[in-house]
Amino acid sequence: MLSGGARAVARCDELGVAPYSDTPDGLFRGYLTSAHKAALTAIGAWMVEAGMRVRLDPAANLIGRYEGASEGAPALVFGSHVDSVRDAGRYDGPLGVMLAIEVVARLAGRRLPFAIEIYAFGDEEGSRFPASMLCSRAVAGTLAAEALEVTDRDGIGLGAALSAFRHPGLVPGSSERQAPHASGQGEGWTPDQVRGDDYLEARRVPSEILAFVEPHIEQGPVLEAEGLAVGVVTGIAAQLRFQATVTGTAGHAGTTSMGLRRDALPAAAEMVLAVEREALAAGGDVVATVGRLTVAPGAVNVVPGEVAFSIDVRSGDERARNQAAEDIRDEIAAIADRRRVDLRIEQVQDLPATPCDPGLMALMDAALARAGQPPKQLVSGAGHDTMVIAALAPVVMLFLRSPGGISHNPAESVSVSDADTALDVLGHFIDLLEERALA
Amino acid sequence: MLSGGARAVARCDELGVAPYSDTPDGLFRGYLTSAHKAALTAIGAWMVEAGMRVRLDPAANLIGRYEGASEGAPALVFGSHVDSVRDAGRYDGPLGVMLAIEVVARLAGRRLPFAIEIYAFGDEEGSRFPASMLCSRAVAGTLAAEALEVTDRDGIGLGAALSAFRHPGLVPGSSERQAPHASGQGEGWTPDQVRGDDYLEARRVPSEILAFVEPHIEQGPVLEAEGLAVGVVTGIAAQLRFQATVTGTAGHAGTTSMGLRRDALPAAAEMVLAVEREALAAGGDVVATVGRLTVAPGAVNVVPGEVAFSIDVRSGDERARNQAAEDIRDEIAAIADRRRVDLRIEQVQDLPATPCDPGLMALMDAALARAGQPPKQLVSGAGHDTMVIAALAPVVMLFLRSPGGISHNPAESVSVSDADTALDVLGHFIDLLEERALA
Repeated sequence: MLSGGARAVARCDELGVAPYSDTPDGLFRGYLTSAHKAALTAIGAWMVEAGMRVRLDPAANLIGRYEGASEGAPALVFGSHVDSVRDAGRYDGPLGVMLAIEVVARLAGRRLPFAIEIYAFGDEEGSRFPASMLCSRAVAGTLAAEALEVTDRDGIGLGAALSAFRHPGLVPGSSERQAPHASGQGEGWTPDQVRGDDYLEARRVPSEILAFVEPHIEQGPVLEAEGLAVGVVTGIAAQLRFQATVTGTAGHAGTTSMGLRRDALPAAAEMVLAVEREALAAGGDVVATVGRLTVAPGAVNVVPGEVAFSIDVRSGDERARNQAAEDIRDEIAAIADRRRVDLRIEQVQDLPATPCDPGLMALMDAALARAGQPPKQLVSGAGHDTMVIAALAPVVMLFLRSPGGISHNPAESVSVSDADTALDVLGHFIDLLEERALA
Repeated sequence: MLSGGARAVARCDELGVAPYSDTPDGLFRGYLTSAHKAALTAIGAWMVEAGMRVRLDPAANLIGRYEGASEGAPALVFGSHVDSVRDAGRYDGPLGVMLAIEVVARLAGRRLPFAIEIYAFGDEEGSRFPASMLCSRAVAGTLAAEALEVTDRDGIGLGAALSAFRHPGLVPGSSERQAPHASGQGEGWTPDQVRGDDYLEARRVPSEILAFVEPHIEQGPVLEAEGLAVGVVTGIAAQLRFQATVTGTAGHAGTTSMGLRRDALPAAAEMVLAVEREALAAGGDVVATVGRLTVAPGAVNVVPGEVAFSIDVRSGDERARNQAAEDIRDEIAAIADRRRVDLRIEQVQDLPATPCDPGLMALMDAALARAGQPPKQLVSGAGHDTMVIAALAPVVMLFLRSPGGISHNPAESVSVSDADTALDVLGHFIDLLEERALA
């Protein structure tokens, strides 16, 4: 028989291909697509099998609920997303849901002073519409109605996509949904349990939620570098984004003497190096990235006249982030002056840091200790649904080691042993929360 | 009434906007596009008006012919290209064609011991397909059949593009084509004069061509720096092109610590700066350019995994060019090593220097003297159709001053006075060629 960790990993693998992927080669699961529908059918059946009642909320979040000792008690909520980027890995998102299902399965009917819910959020990655974390924002009540007026690349609006998704005939049944389950507490998972049709009714209120926990792969190299299976996330990094445009003078590559050039590309190259240098100089968890850069006119035989590039700066510490961004801006302005090129730079995003709840972090630290794991706290450089849910409930995240730090890539992986360790930690976390509730 | 130079300049200006441009803002005229078609219709009408017979060859070169004293005599051929780079200037290419038309118009029916032909080459810039000088190479007979197996960025092959271009219904008529012309020697220009359908049949034989002359703007700063209107080109600079690909490891911009990155972009940025630095160190007329650079995957939140870029190195002196290229390759290999990224570099072009014909240069020198211009010889850093036609016939070029040295840029310009001076020189050149033929 598979260990819980092995089963969680195997289920992510199962969801990595058609019909759970919208593309025949490589994984892509978009929000409200047929792959999303197929995945929810399978996940709902697994939730039922673990002893949960299952429903879809008006934002197409799949929610499993395992009642506590008394019906209707506030819930410890686990959650992560089941959509993906294109050519994705199989664990970014779904692993958190699968681990939570294993946590409930392990309870084997044992009732706690609180309920447990699991959210499989439909959209975190912005996988279909030009907006991300639509689903957790609806749950947190931070989504403005205007934010729903988005259309996908085929011009299909969110409302139309939801209607197509909800049509009972379009949600395929699963042979597993009638399967008997260990606890005998679950009910059959049928698609007609979709509730309501107003997206914003997905909203929950703080009194219903005791705590929110998101298990997730690290997507970075820190745990692996330190030889650790898991770590407690202290918060989501603050993020600043800029768009810079360098304008020089285009000219013929064969006839414009070197000394007379105002080449935008070497100027931008110096700026790219300045971004890297300043992030390294800032130290700590500061990262800065030029991920997109385009050269115009972009012909082999033309001296570049214009280069545009993005700058992304992050840190768990907003002051460190802001200082690094300021140093970068100062330095690239000086480069533009020295090279006699024009520079336009504008800030396009400013996301504040989201600290995790100190009480929950302390509980998770203690759970690591009970599981025999060395203590480890780290910042999440990536954004997660957790940063949205923080507006609704106290939050904490548990990171699992990412081999090679690889994510958003088919080579993304996670070891079964680390998944079992994470399950162990989450089990102790529940015990500790129970002890705290009864104390 | 306009001077010949003024009319040549005005016609280039007329061709600088729609329908003679494929883009609404800024000039771009691609090979075999509707802008190309519209331009040939207008230019053909101007050739007819100057007393020439007009035809399109199988490579969609527009050819005007002004017979000599005896029908079928070998021709003095003028030629330049009518395609353009993106966001181009209006004179690079077309001015040579317009000046040649004025030279013929000035003859006003006077017959010479040789014919005059004007070639408006369809592709010199590689404006549509990933190959340049397709048209002059077809004429010179140096184009291999395999070279025709190219497709544009929309996947359209050369053959399909030619068929669409040739369809009579798609070549718009011009009201000017029926206009009476001064000499009475021309025939109506109609698009059904397209001849043959085998691209390589555009080839000409040496016995048909007495000499080839390309008037062209300098596209560089030399003539302006010396206060000269025109100069005789001694040859085309030797040119080397490389394609480099830097491969690092893509990663999440928020989670991949600075110290653990193998970011392809800062590595490529150092290489771009090395290309510039080595060209400056080489001095003389050596130029080196990174004109095209692309970043993959190219997302704001992803550390670049791969950067590809072009390197173009030129000099009138092949040894200086080769030494600079070797120094650049050594330095970028060292950067790749130091940054632990993979580097693939391949040479994609090696064009030797092309000397102009000494006899024709002497005649052009003498023409400058007759026109009262100071003697001036210079090297062309840019490639031109002339370097291709050199395989077929003796060649020479006449350069016109480029204000600011600016080219491949909407700010490219030429003065009417310089255009009139060039016409004067070309008129004396024809007289001298006639004297030589009769001697």
